[in-house]
Amino acid sequence: MGGYGCFIFCLLASLLAGFFSILFVLVWVLYWREGLSWDGALAEFNWHPLLIVIGFIVLQGFAIVVYRLPWTWRCSKFLMKCIHAGLHLTVLILATVSLVAVFDFHNNKNIPNMYSMHSWLGLAAVVLYGVQILIGLLVYLFPFAPVTLRATLLPFHVFSGLLIFGAGIATALMGITEKLFFALKSPHYSTSPPEALFVNFLGAFILIFGAFVFWMVTQPQWKRPQEEVPKTLGAEEEGKISADCENSKMESNKEATRKRYVYLDEAGERSTM
Amino acid sequence: MGGYGCFIFCLLASLLAGFFSILFVLVWVLYWREGLSWDGALAEFNWHPLLIVIGFIVLQGFAIVVYRLPWTWRCSKFLMKCIHAGLHLTVLILATVSLVAVFDFHNNKNIPNMYSMHSWLGLAAVVLYGVQILIGLLVYLFPFAPVTLRATLLPFHVFSGLLIFGAGIATALMGITEKLFFALKSPHYSTSPPEALFVNFLGAFILIFGAFVFWMVTQPQWKRPQEEVPKTLGAEEEGKISADCENSKMESNKEATRKRYVYLDEAGERSTM
Repeated sequence: MGGYGCFIFCLLASLLAGFFSILFVLVWVLYWREGLSWDGALAEFNWHPLLIVIGFIVLQGFAIVVYRLPWTWRCSKFLMKCIHAGLHLTVLILATVSLVAVFDFHNNKNIPNMYSMHSWLGLAAVVLYGVQILIGLLVYLFPFAPVTLRATLLPFHVFSGLLIFGAGIATALMGITEKLFFALKSPHYSTSPPEALFVNFLGAFILIFGAFVFWMVTQPQWKRPQEEVPKTLGAEEEGKISADCENSKMESNKEATRKRYVYLDEAGERSTM
Repeated sequence: MGGYGCFIFCLLASLLAGFFSILFVLVWVLYWREGLSWDGALAEFNWHPLLIVIGFIVLQGFAIVVYRLPWTWRCSKFLMKCIHAGLHLTVLILATVSLVAVFDFHNNKNIPNMYSMHSWLGLAAVVLYGVQILIGLLVYLFPFAPVTLRATLLPFHVFSGLLIFGAGIATALMGITEKLFFALKSPHYSTSPPEALFVNFLGAFILIFGAFVFWMVTQPQWKRPQEEVPKTLGAEEEGKISADCENSKMESNKEATRKRYVYLDEAGERSTM
């Protein structure tokens, strides 16, 4: 039940759920709501749900899952860390723009900021996400941190990443709930107009996407295989030794590829569950 | 970082967050809202958030974490399974009563049922919880299921349990958001009256409680130690052999206690991550 085929099924299912999440939020803001603009009107607010679903939900999910893709196991760990960090930094930028959109819209319309539970938990999630990325860069990407520190912080790095992802999903669902109660007055949300049903499905797709991501990153049999390089090697040197993904692809035997990385310190180099 | 002291700290923190979650929801319905009754009025609805927080959040969290309590490792696995299953069944009863309260209130006031995303995901979570308990009882508590089936289903049992718990937290936060937007009209939620701030903290406590539970049950160093009994033994026989927790306490050496269970099949008997 835990083989390659099963992983591919889960990956395709998450891709599909992620695709439908983005499609549904896009159709919602473009067809049912006021579209997209940057003029302080409702259409500016719409960047908020759109960018959060694209970034903080879907892209973050794939940034978390990227180490588990079997065809990346031939790539150097350093390259994978760069992709992981790059995706997360992109998510942080999208989340920041989405927050600017909502604050700008509120200020323009004299709507108070930061009063709802959604806003409290959402801002906390984005701030913690920034802290998580900063610590991740300092400890795991740059070659300064000692191996013991990397090993000590690893379970916290993995757990807090998943916690922020989960909290992001919960906060998104709260935000969609808020928006539906605000926006659906005539006909009212409680009369289940087509928009209500449509957006309820958006929530379901977000949850299904999250469930598949959590499943993929918590199954031990789908971990990136252990590698060995000297303890003294930093991320840069590791990168030089292993060249890049393209070079690795030349080698036909996966096992042989892995053996190129001799003596890699396991504790300091692994960063998924 | 993963020792006994750290586990106790996490357990106390989760107890505190759980206690404050229940206290805050109780104060909310008794002081800010219409109290509790069973007459079809708003006070009947209030059983819904109260019982969900007590049952589906706090009690379910402790039902999940119960195998990780080090002082229960001397107790027989069968006894622990009974406690685990008993707590979950209690949660299911509380959740069912809480659903009856909200449907009864809606029907009495001619409010449509099942139109919001909260109601969709909430009902799905409770139904899946019932299915999870039924499968858990049939496969892990009663001695009929073969060891291979137990082993195959174990990762799904653990994962779906945590997924339902997480979905329950997200759904509870959506429900609280709904209620605040419905109830706070004058003064409006957006003006941050004391009730709004108070209930926002309720949401934060629920999330903190969930975070500590997830941390405790996903750390491998806090797993219940492996035990060994003959593969042919079912739950009943295991229960007879190991007597009960009280007898086990007589043995001063934990290691000696564990060795009493010779040849226990690991795969079929473990049911936490």
